[in-house]
Amino acid sequence: MPFRKIINDPVYGFITVDDELIYQVIAHPYFQRLRRISQMAMANLVYPGAVHSRLHHALGAYHLMSIALNELKNKGIQITPAEEQAAKIAILLHDIGHGPFSHALEHELVENMHHEDLSLMIINELNKQFNGQLNLTLEIFTDRYHKKYLFQLISGQLDVDRMDYLTRDSFFTGVNEGVIGYDRILKMLTVYNGELMVEEKSIYSIEKFLVARRLMYWQVYLHKTVLCAEQMLKRIIKRAKYIKAATQQPLHNFITKPIQTVALEEFCIMDDYDVMAAIKNWCTHEDKVLSTLCNGIINRQILKVRYFGDPISTTMLQEKNAEACLKLNLSSEDAGWLVFTGEVASSTYSLEDEHIHILFKDGSVKDISEVDNALINQNLMSKVKKYYICYFR
Amino acid sequence: MPFRKIINDPVYGFITVDDELIYQVIAHPYFQRLRRISQMAMANLVYPGAVHSRLHHALGAYHLMSIALNELKNKGIQITPAEEQAAKIAILLHDIGHGPFSHALEHELVENMHHEDLSLMIINELNKQFNGQLNLTLEIFTDRYHKKYLFQLISGQLDVDRMDYLTRDSFFTGVNEGVIGYDRILKMLTVYNGELMVEEKSIYSIEKFLVARRLMYWQVYLHKTVLCAEQMLKRIIKRAKYIKAATQQPLHNFITKPIQTVALEEFCIMDDYDVMAAIKNWCTHEDKVLSTLCNGIINRQILKVRYFGDPISTTMLQEKNAEACLKLNLSSEDAGWLVFTGEVASSTYSLEDEHIHILFKDGSVKDISEVDNALINQNLMSKVKKYYICYFR
Amino acid sequence: MPFRKIINDPVYGFITVDDELIYQVIAHPYFQRLRRISQMAMANLVYPGAVHSRLHHALGAYHLMSIALNELKNKGIQITPAEEQAAKIAILLHDIGHGPFSHALEHELVENMHHEDLSLMIINELNKQFNGQLNLTLEIFTDRYHKKYLFQLISGQLDVDRMDYLTRDSFFTGVNEGVIGYDRILKMLTVYNGELMVEEKSIYSIEKFLVARRLMYWQVYLHKTVLCAEQMLKRIIKRAKYIKAATQQPLHNFITKPIQTVALEEFCIMDDYDVMAAIKNWCTHEDKVLSTLCNGIINRQILKVRYFGDPISTTMLQEKNAEACLKLNLSSEDAGWLVFTGEVASSTYSLEDEHIHILFKDGSVKDISEVDNALINQNLMSKVKKYYICYFR
Amino acid sequence: MPFRKIINDPVYGFITVDDELIYQVIAHPYFQRLRRISQMAMANLVYPGAVHSRLHHALGAYHLMSIALNELKNKGIQITPAEEQAAKIAILLHDIGHGPFSHALEHELVENMHHEDLSLMIINELNKQFNGQLNLTLEIFTDRYHKKYLFQLISGQLDVDRMDYLTRDSFFTGVNEGVIGYDRILKMLTVYNGELMVEEKSIYSIEKFLVARRLMYWQVYLHKTVLCAEQMLKRIIKRAKYIKAATQQPLHNFITKPIQTVALEEFCIMDDYDVMAAIKNWCTHEDKVLSTLCNGIINRQILKVRYFGDPISTTMLQEKNAEACLKLNLSSEDAGWLVFTGEVASSTYSLEDEHIHILFKDGSVKDISEVDNALINQNLMSKVKKYYICYFR
Repeated sequence: MPFRKIINDPVYGFITVDDELIYQVIAHPYFQRLRRISQMAMANLVYPGAVHSRLHHALGAYHLMSIALNELKNKGIQITPAEEQAAKIAILLHDIGHGPFSHALEHELVENMHHEDLSLMIINELNKQFNGQLNLTLEIFTDRYHKKYLFQLISGQLDVDRMDYLTRDSFFTGVNEGVIGYDRILKMLTVYNGELMVEEKSIYSIEKFLVARRLMYWQVYLHKTVLCAEQMLKRIIKRAKYIKAATQQPLHNFITKPIQTVALEEFCIMDDYDVMAAIKNWCTHEDKVLSTLCNGIINRQILKVRYFGDPISTTMLQEKNAEACLKLNLSSEDAGWLVFTGEVASSTYSLEDEHIHILFKDGSVKDISEVDNALINQNLMSKVKKYYICYFR
Repeated sequence: MPFRKIINDPVYGFITVDDELIYQVIAHPYFQRLRRISQMAMANLVYPGAVHSRLHHALGAYHLMSIALNELKNKGIQITPAEEQAAKIAILLHDIGHGPFSHALEHELVENMHHEDLSLMIINELNKQFNGQLNLTLEIFTDRYHKKYLFQLISGQLDVDRMDYLTRDSFFTGVNEGVIGYDRILKMLTVYNGELMVEEKSIYSIEKFLVARRLMYWQVYLHKTVLCAEQMLKRIIKRAKYIKAATQQPLHNFITKPIQTVALEEFCIMDDYDVMAAIKNWCTHEDKVLSTLCNGIINRQILKVRYFGDPISTTMLQEKNAEACLKLNLSSEDAGWLVFTGEVASSTYSLEDEHIHILFKDGSVKDISEVDNALINQNLMSKVKKYYICYFR
Repeated sequence: MPFRKIINDPVYGFITVDDELIYQVIAHPYFQRLRRISQMAMANLVYPGAVHSRLHHALGAYHLMSIALNELKNKGIQITPAEEQAAKIAILLHDIGHGPFSHALEHELVENMHHEDLSLMIINELNKQFNGQLNLTLEIFTDRYHKKYLFQLISGQLDVDRMDYLTRDSFFTGVNEGVIGYDRILKMLTVYNGELMVEEKSIYSIEKFLVARRLMYWQVYLHKTVLCAEQMLKRIIKRAKYIKAATQQPLHNFITKPIQTVALEEFCIMDDYDVMAAIKNWCTHEDKVLSTLCNGIINRQILKVRYFGDPISTTMLQEKNAEACLKLNLSSEDAGWLVFTGEVASSTYSLEDEHIHILFKDGSVKDISEVDNALINQNLMSKVKKYYICYFR
Repeated sequence: MPFRKIINDPVYGFITVDDELIYQVIAHPYFQRLRRISQMAMANLVYPGAVHSRLHHALGAYHLMSIALNELKNKGIQITPAEEQAAKIAILLHDIGHGPFSHALEHELVENMHHEDLSLMIINELNKQFNGQLNLTLEIFTDRYHKKYLFQLISGQLDVDRMDYLTRDSFFTGVNEGVIGYDRILKMLTVYNGELMVEEKSIYSIEKFLVARRLMYWQVYLHKTVLCAEQMLKRIIKRAKYIKAATQQPLHNFITKPIQTVALEEFCIMDDYDVMAAIKNWCTHEDKVLSTLCNGIINRQILKVRYFGDPISTTMLQEKNAEACLKLNLSSEDAGWLVFTGEVASSTYSLEDEHIHILFKDGSVKDISEVDNALINQNLMSKVKKYYICYFR
């Protein structure tokens, strides 16, 4: 009987793994670590259901990749078993380089490195451990493989990564409006001139996908309370580094040592639990800034936060800083850790990134922003900026 | 124990009727007739699940009205039990004037009358039968009541009618992308200066609602096969009138007599079954035009149909007409019943209709198209026109 | 590009047809007729969403068959493309012999014939029209093919017919409790000694499936109002035959002629619309029994109905009959058409039918009622009888 | 404008909190701690979606309580605003006494105390902090209040606790078969003689509820891998205590001190993160038993586990013990920590617990196991025992 494992998934029903190498990758401690890294960092403070793990997202994206490859094969596109295996492993590992709380701490713990770079390092390491069986995975992952659409399925405007995270995040938050027609879009995928495209019939689904993404950004990912809590999280790590706050391994090294000396092995045993356990300990730390931030996260006493269409005035910032100094008996500099401004930006569709190409029945190709009566126009392509202030209340 | 009936609804779970007058309205034969009028006419030829009835939609809209009124009351808006009862009956009866196949035959069977006019006539008749208990319903329904928002809940850009039909039609067709966040929008409803508005936090939900509606129009309601089948349906009735084709009562009177002589009572016993039974009989009618159209509907042999961005050329029309003459041995005039062009138009958001007003926390009010970084801009407010040709293949 | 049609289904998402012969079968007028036959007869009088068609159920069962065959192939069971095509066509056509209102009128319009017999006659006819391409379908459908499990997938305790109708009927009625884990059961299907079985791990899913079926029978299919409305429907046809009530073709022949003279061709153009149009006409019939029954169905004024654990006493029946005579000024014999008793029976699991066999890891096979700590025991295997009385109120 | 907070919940849509005291209870650090206690302990090792928190479950049960109380009030049962508030707070706090990993470590960290006792201690403490505002909550929670049905809604065979955890756990695991008709059951709740009952019409829903619960126990809660992982977790704590393994506060005190000296305050800052961080550290502990168990949990290398219908033979246990000694170079005693047997038991419906009473229309009351043709019979009321062995492979 052929190899087959079935995993229950509330989002898609069942996820099937029918390849032994893929199963070994999933079973590897590096992949299992993703079980302890939450996909949406602090979003659960607003959406209590949003506690799903990055491992779950990786499995979901793998599932969509399986469907996508099947659909393409059904349309007559040649994909070899080796390519299929490699593409599936690539999507499983696309986020393997994420550290604790994913994006929220991405540049705090390991400075100057994107999670994609760390993912690549780890895939290289795994390739060694698996005796080169991930060579093709590496080629696809780094866009060196001649079938470009395989890379585009992993990283592009219509990749299965986005399709899964939008679907999954909207499922677990309960924000039904973020639901996208992933199944319809997958059925409309096609390859033309070696590039991933979607058929003409999917135009409205694609528009809907972009609008759902826009909604998820502003309503969920950049929800003011979520944003503020994640800023607090960042500042906790920054402050801990600044005052060299004591903590346990493996976090200790990341807090105290210059980053270049940290080994991959150390990184790969670190997860949300190390950070959260440290935060819990720091709740009683003598440094008032650190303990205030930590208590805020633990007891869900988030700083006050407001969004504005224009940059925050210095006057307002100074006023709030002065209030915090008074209430907490802090220096203005220390209060600055609890009273701060920033900006966020998001665009609904950006031509700077990968394009979404529509393949028409007559063989012509158009960008989604250039079809007749497009929803996606100039207006939606520019970045929307919002400015925020967080302050102690 | 208080009066209470519970109806299972796959869309909302349970619909509760806890008022005896409302229950009597539902039990009335005029309302029960809606059970035999399909909500989406010919859409089931493309979406086999879309066979839900107009009665089901009316009950669904009633359910949303109940929720909406509750939410408003929870926000401190004064609504009396009599107003609540009247508003609920008004939404139950808002479509009572629809005839067989709803919109598809709206102007074919009863010429020169909108279904809204017929609804009003029927509500007046019911008011007599219920001894004036529907007086307030009539005031609200005709927008003569001073609490304008009650009318707006029945007929406006954010009325519960639209919310239910988009939700229900997307449920029964299986077009999940048409799903709107009706529950969230209902929670965001408010009244300001006597007008229905939505709170600031709902902006993205409203945008999503408009985009979902756009998608439903182009992907479902104006799907080319659905459009063509409904055009065929119209032409069947037109042709039957033209050749005075024999049929049974009550349809007979609508086919043969000038419309002004048709009594309301006759209208109120007519439904999809009369029309479909006639179509089945006409499948063997000696008039080739009529029988061809009827067989097309019954056996799902729909005319060939194509959409274009520009008006169809006379040349193309003549060519297709000539082909049909040849294939079916018809005169050019008769072939014109099977080969024809037309146009459809739809706008995502039109300022000509009711506006959607956003109430901001600071008390200001803006149109949804005027908020910062609005998705809904000039581009989406103009009508999009498409041109089609249907022809015999 | 390979042949492929996609159909939206609210229950399963998308149904894919990727075989031209299968598509031709679906497009055939005989199959399209099922579009006009409701799957659940009068159930919509209680569950307004239950208006789905038998065509929709056939497509759904076809979809589950596709999944089931795929799962079996993935487990290493050899199934040829021809067998796959034939099994899919067999399930598509398994209910093709259903007439108007399916089971409710099964033995009224065509006496002494089960719908299965009519299905077989029609498949034979289609086989002629398709030049013998349905030979293998016929072998499987009649259980003459050596791979018995293909027949068991169409007709057995765990066939895809039941899986679809339970799933679909619970979806459209909104009775969520009828939901079965069809996807899990399909994943657990296997073949052993040529027979269809389920793996050990599915025991609880199977038990749940049987309990869901039990619930659907008593709560939906045999709901007292549904039962009574369907009894009224039967009696309408019986009475129409009895008094030779006039109606149109094709129903006319079924009402007036001895059944052996009715041709298959006539049967195949008859559907719900013919019956319902006749009922609408008979609402004003001079025969009071017929018109009372017809008005009851049309205006949802169902007879009063009560269930009992024991047979209804003659006294009660006579009492109710006398009341009806008085109220309607009818003879006792005529009143008997409106006041009547009957019984229904259902068993949760019956050993008389096909068994459900569990294949254990050690290779042993047990009936679901014989596994350790079985939910399904002697008690649940006997038929439960209930007795009802319907009477005019 | 009245006080109102809305929380998104993927299971029920929206949860509304419209009472300030209730909101303060939710905002209290003791309640927020539940955010860091997973509802299903180790179940996520098999069902990756099962990572929802106990806080989420408490909010869900609160939501069902709100619906239940509303339904009862709609049926004319008098419930005062104070009782409503108190019952809602009681359900919010019913699990407040759970420590890390809930049931899995219930008797390991705090010996000889049930979580219910700890809940009571904490509610008493909160009552002090809230100046006696929880007095009525305490009366209801301890079943001292004269309206017994309020207690039964919190703790009984049909309490909202069970309804939420079955619904929620089946939602997050993706085991759709565990779905219960909670909405229907809530609509059928009633009070008779001061006791909570369900109306006759709900019999099949109740049976389904019990079968769903049976399925969830055997398929999810007692899934062999879940069971084994939770046994490993228990043994980690036991072993840590045994060898007095070093760890941080607050866990340190629970590991090293006799339990009676542990203060409530210490308990209330402990959560999953403390235990998991300790386990991560112990992965490199010099005690081989401890580190083996810890690595097993962290890297999902669970001991081998098998279920049997009969007790495990000493021979088998000794054999597996000997193998472990050899493979890990351990003494037989130490190997006993990694090779062990046990038993689990569950009954579908037990008369020892609270009964489920059905109120018939004629005013009679029957136990669900005594209705006609009951699914729940003697067979299902006895405890089913299964025996397991876990061993090192």
